[in-house]
Amino acid sequence: MATDAPPLTAQTDQTGQTGPPTPAGPPDRVDVEALTTLLDGPHGDLRRAVRERIAEHASILVYREELPTPEFRERVLQLVRTLAETGQTSLGFPVAYGGAGDVGASVAAFETLALGDLSVLVKVGVQFGLFGGAVLQLGTQRHHDRYLARIASGELLGCFAMTETGHGSNVAALETVATYDPDTDEFVITTPREEAGKDYIGNAAAHGELAVVFAQLVVASQAHGVHALLVPIRVDGEPAPGVRIEDDGHKMGLNGVDNGRLWFTDVRVPREVLLDRFAQVSAEGEYRSPIENPNKRFFTMLGTLIQGRVSVSGASLSASKVALAIAVRYALQRRQFGADGSDAGEELLLDYGLHQRRLLPLLARTYALHFAQEELVAQLHDSFTEPAGDGGGDVDAERQAARRRLESRAAGTNALATWHATRTIQESREACGGAGYLAVNRFAALKADPDVFTTFEGDNHVLLQLVAKGLLTDYAQAFGDMDRIELVRYVASLGVETTIERAGVHTWLERIKDVLPGGDDWDQEAGLLDSDYQRAMYRYREEHTLAAAARRLKRGIDGGLAAGEVFSRVQPHLIAAARAHLERQVLEVFVERVRATPDGDVKVALGLLCDLHALSGIEADRAWFLEHGRLSSQRSKAITREVDSLNRQLRPLAGDLVDAFAIPPELLRAPALLAPASP
Amino acid sequence: MATDAPPLTAQTDQTGQTGPPTPAGPPDRVDVEALTTLLDGPHGDLRRAVRERIAEHASILVYREELPTPEFRERVLQLVRTLAETGQTSLGFPVAYGGAGDVGASVAAFETLALGDLSVLVKVGVQFGLFGGAVLQLGTQRHHDRYLARIASGELLGCFAMTETGHGSNVAALETVATYDPDTDEFVITTPREEAGKDYIGNAAAHGELAVVFAQLVVASQAHGVHALLVPIRVDGEPAPGVRIEDDGHKMGLNGVDNGRLWFTDVRVPREVLLDRFAQVSAEGEYRSPIENPNKRFFTMLGTLIQGRVSVSGASLSASKVALAIAVRYALQRRQFGADGSDAGEELLLDYGLHQRRLLPLLARTYALHFAQEELVAQLHDSFTEPAGDGGGDVDAERQAARRRLESRAAGTNALATWHATRTIQESREACGGAGYLAVNRFAALKADPDVFTTFEGDNHVLLQLVAKGLLTDYAQAFGDMDRIELVRYVASLGVETTIERAGVHTWLERIKDVLPGGDDWDQEAGLLDSDYQRAMYRYREEHTLAAAARRLKRGIDGGLAAGEVFSRVQPHLIAAARAHLERQVLEVFVERVRATPDGDVKVALGLLCDLHALSGIEADRAWFLEHGRLSSQRSKAITREVDSLNRQLRPLAGDLVDAFAIPPELLRAPALLAPASP
Repeated sequence: MATDAPPLTAQTDQTGQTGPPTPAGPPDRVDVEALTTLLDGPHGDLRRAVRERIAEHASILVYREELPTPEFRERVLQLVRTLAETGQTSLGFPVAYGGAGDVGASVAAFETLALGDLSVLVKVGVQFGLFGGAVLQLGTQRHHDRYLARIASGELLGCFAMTETGHGSNVAALETVATYDPDTDEFVITTPREEAGKDYIGNAAAHGELAVVFAQLVVASQAHGVHALLVPIRVDGEPAPGVRIEDDGHKMGLNGVDNGRLWFTDVRVPREVLLDRFAQVSAEGEYRSPIENPNKRFFTMLGTLIQGRVSVSGASLSASKVALAIAVRYALQRRQFGADGSDAGEELLLDYGLHQRRLLPLLARTYALHFAQEELVAQLHDSFTEPAGDGGGDVDAERQAARRRLESRAAGTNALATWHATRTIQESREACGGAGYLAVNRFAALKADPDVFTTFEGDNHVLLQLVAKGLLTDYAQAFGDMDRIELVRYVASLGVETTIERAGVHTWLERIKDVLPGGDDWDQEAGLLDSDYQRAMYRYREEHTLAAAARRLKRGIDGGLAAGEVFSRVQPHLIAAARAHLERQVLEVFVERVRATPDGDVKVALGLLCDLHALSGIEADRAWFLEHGRLSSQRSKAITREVDSLNRQLRPLAGDLVDAFAIPPELLRAPALLAPASP
Repeated sequence: MATDAPPLTAQTDQTGQTGPPTPAGPPDRVDVEALTTLLDGPHGDLRRAVRERIAEHASILVYREELPTPEFRERVLQLVRTLAETGQTSLGFPVAYGGAGDVGASVAAFETLALGDLSVLVKVGVQFGLFGGAVLQLGTQRHHDRYLARIASGELLGCFAMTETGHGSNVAALETVATYDPDTDEFVITTPREEAGKDYIGNAAAHGELAVVFAQLVVASQAHGVHALLVPIRVDGEPAPGVRIEDDGHKMGLNGVDNGRLWFTDVRVPREVLLDRFAQVSAEGEYRSPIENPNKRFFTMLGTLIQGRVSVSGASLSASKVALAIAVRYALQRRQFGADGSDAGEELLLDYGLHQRRLLPLLARTYALHFAQEELVAQLHDSFTEPAGDGGGDVDAERQAARRRLESRAAGTNALATWHATRTIQESREACGGAGYLAVNRFAALKADPDVFTTFEGDNHVLLQLVAKGLLTDYAQAFGDMDRIELVRYVASLGVETTIERAGVHTWLERIKDVLPGGDDWDQEAGLLDSDYQRAMYRYREEHTLAAAARRLKRGIDGGLAAGEVFSRVQPHLIAAARAHLERQVLEVFVERVRATPDGDVKVALGLLCDLHALSGIEADRAWFLEHGRLSSQRSKAITREVDSLNRQLRPLAGDLVDAFAIPPELLRAPALLAPASP
């Protein structure tokens, strides 16, 4: 979380600067429309259409505060169904069932929806993403035919019942049981103890009829791990027999979503409700799955649901954009008394170096993560648009590895984006002073609603752990299939250099030599604004932290500790390696994106943002670079000065840069903060 | 804000540690009752009584979520009046008017109240602290006699109408006008434009009858700066003639407080309503004040209201304690699956080094700030318990300087404490996973309500600026009275060494030599756990940043820039110096506190917390120490290892350390998170 926090002690040397201004300085305007088009990416028309739609329904932002929870829930449901009519909420469904079969468009629509009320967003996510997505991805033809069209229209409302009170991120250990009874050709769903009740389940407390229930499948007294089944939970508005439902009650935010708890007491459902794409049970009670390893099977199932994770990270970025748009625009019209306390010359807030430091690096990072998210969505789209599997067949190893890398990237981007949202919203709200506390100015909703994202997909640290495991898995990949403990031993037994070599993550030195001649001093001589230098720094950190983690794994194994114990101790290093890996990825996407932009003011602006993002990232972690000999004291201070300089250069563009997010004014909803923008 | 954030990349070397365990390790229990007594300080009985009282009324926490705003406001008012009956809300009032004349007790009660619902707290603060406090401190005998008893009982409800929509922290420039009309012996109160309306005023929207209105006083066409007058705003529940009232509407939190806006159109009030302790207007229209400089007069008035700022910082710490108590206890009963993803051996969350890193340094800092706050309150108490002024007379220079240092300390502690609360609450909530999002678990309230504190007393950066100005003022003090620009010139013209010498902040080198023989290498050889070493590091940073800021001031002035411009450019450095100053102060109080504690498990536990606080502070800012040659790479990494080690040593004590906050279980209100504690 400290990634790009300003240092406690600044080293700016503004006062002493008496040199001439940069000859041909950056432009003081950006073509906002062109930048919006660039940000909107491949689904510009769709994004525009969704923006128009939610602007029409902006009154939901007011209902959020004014209506009692039950009524607000109904309003939200109503709006979700209205949106469903446009087809914009089920673009990922096959055309045959009312969708467009377009994963990328589906995420784009969802991200855009996140500029509006987030109860609506999350309800859409629950209904079409989680519930509908599970039926689509885990079910087969018969489930699709029976349900998908009614799910897409919003007629059949459902739940995604995975999480249990007693477990958190450890989904594989959940306790609900589904036992096959061959006598009646039914599954019997049971919650074995109070703590094993499904919890925080959207659509459960009021509206859901059907639930995708994740349970330990038991067939002929044999446990086969977690599987998903479709279980009716409500009939004519009343809980179905054997189903107990409880309302999760008031929440920090998102009170338009009816989260609840579910317990099952010997609920009998026909065999056909098993979502059987990856495993089937015959009438005779024979269990079959093309994936033999139960763990692998479970993670294959989970992997198909990855779109949810990608969507949440996009939504977090949309919330960050709204917060920044308000705070930046406010800072461009609010005047503050002189820093010396005199009433002479009230300056605009954003004219203060300190205020620039509070907002502009966050703006730069928002752009950086925007492009990282775009890249992630493109990969997701490609991965899910490839010819589908045969409904249960094995996929080849290469594709499997690619999928795992995508999952890792999705988990990591999710962690970065949700933390970024929390931080950006808090800083933006504080930068608006007391007015930021009034609900009318949107921050109340922004602070409360998206907070859930930080734990939605599991604790962010657990997600980063997943990334780290992915990095290690990549190493092992070249050497064939091994179970996890073997993997740990294996990685530990490798020489570190070799490890990195094998991973295809080229040793940084070789690549650096190509772009930055000058031997060992490359990092002492390169220009700070040279993107090759910046990338080399990020890459160096990634490879060094990864190597350090691997070394520690080896030492632990060699010391005779159990693999789990070793893993637990090396955890902070793995998380550091994961972050370094992700930050490098984010930066590289941004650099590529700037390079690919045609010359002009948009490119110049993006270039400044990219430099600011890259250097404030190094600045925030400069202790590490100093400790590892990659920064001298002088150079470290120079980076801080450069960050200040970039902030000053971006200052005149700041208004345009948030305007380019194209957030409908109805949604900014900050009457007390914002008059028409005057940049 | 990055003060004690964990580094992005950890350097812990846990795996390799094979050395023997510390011979006689720290105890694994603390005498909770003894620690509570120590934390409760001089007002233990009072704090216990307040805790019991709010535990009885814990149902207000539920009403917060379940009642519509108007009804919740009434409940809050009702509870405020119930509390008023106990006398616990007006302990700072003179005995003659129902108080105890005890400032320290008054703050202690307020801090304790902050363990409960914060709407109740803020309403108490508005009524007895801001409104009552202004009448007490700015008014004279006649105002006291007429109002204080009725204010203390909660019969007469009032507002503190200072802030205006168009201005924020710049109170001196507010626009409401009070013009004296000698013909009728009245003041005419006017809001000159829409934007000059009073805003965010507690008690304004529904309950207040009378308001302390801050306005520019104009007598005989001459402006005398901001003064306070008592203006009726509501008569029999309806706005008074000429007064327009608007509800601020729904807020992020604190919806039990009726914040509103006030506009005045030629509202006539008798001359006697001027709160005239520091300035009087005669019937003939003659203005008199013992303080000639209008700015100084205004800041003297504001200075008397400092108790509010001290109270808010104490309340922020109470909110932090509640959040940590929940998160730590949760981490002591929640088991997480193995870090390697295996289902073998689910460990307690707090057994993970990473989880310790998330919570324990925050716990240590909470203790550190607790003692800093205690010290601040003691100073406040002494300062306001000294023989009162003669109702307008000058106070001697020494006392004035002491008051200014107190104001500076209050502003700074407020900034540190409110930021700490925001950060601690966020981290604690995330550490509780999805359950943290449910209102029933208290985090909804904790995230929403205390957020206002970060901007309550002005932007935290502005508060830190005040601290920095105080530091500079101290320099000037020895050389007599000078206006601010002269001060800037003066400080700039001083040699830096001399500056520090004069300030009575002894040059660190001399003091260090006494405690740490070894010449220039003191910081390379000293034990990391040596508190003299830790303090020396904090002191070095303080003096270096202050000197650097002064140097830059000088350079700016020498370069011919206007003083205001210079100040604005040096702003980040001043803020860094202010933070360094405050952090040093906090650490020194903590160290002294540990030293003064009798030997035993409590002292050992406090010692560990103090070390953890000191070293994680250095770790968080280690980039600065590396840049300034006060840390080698090796030593920097050793500090990170030591932080990890301290976390492990504190792990067994963590439950006791939060139990010692003695928060009534009714107020923790985390049924889904907490079973009876099992440390």
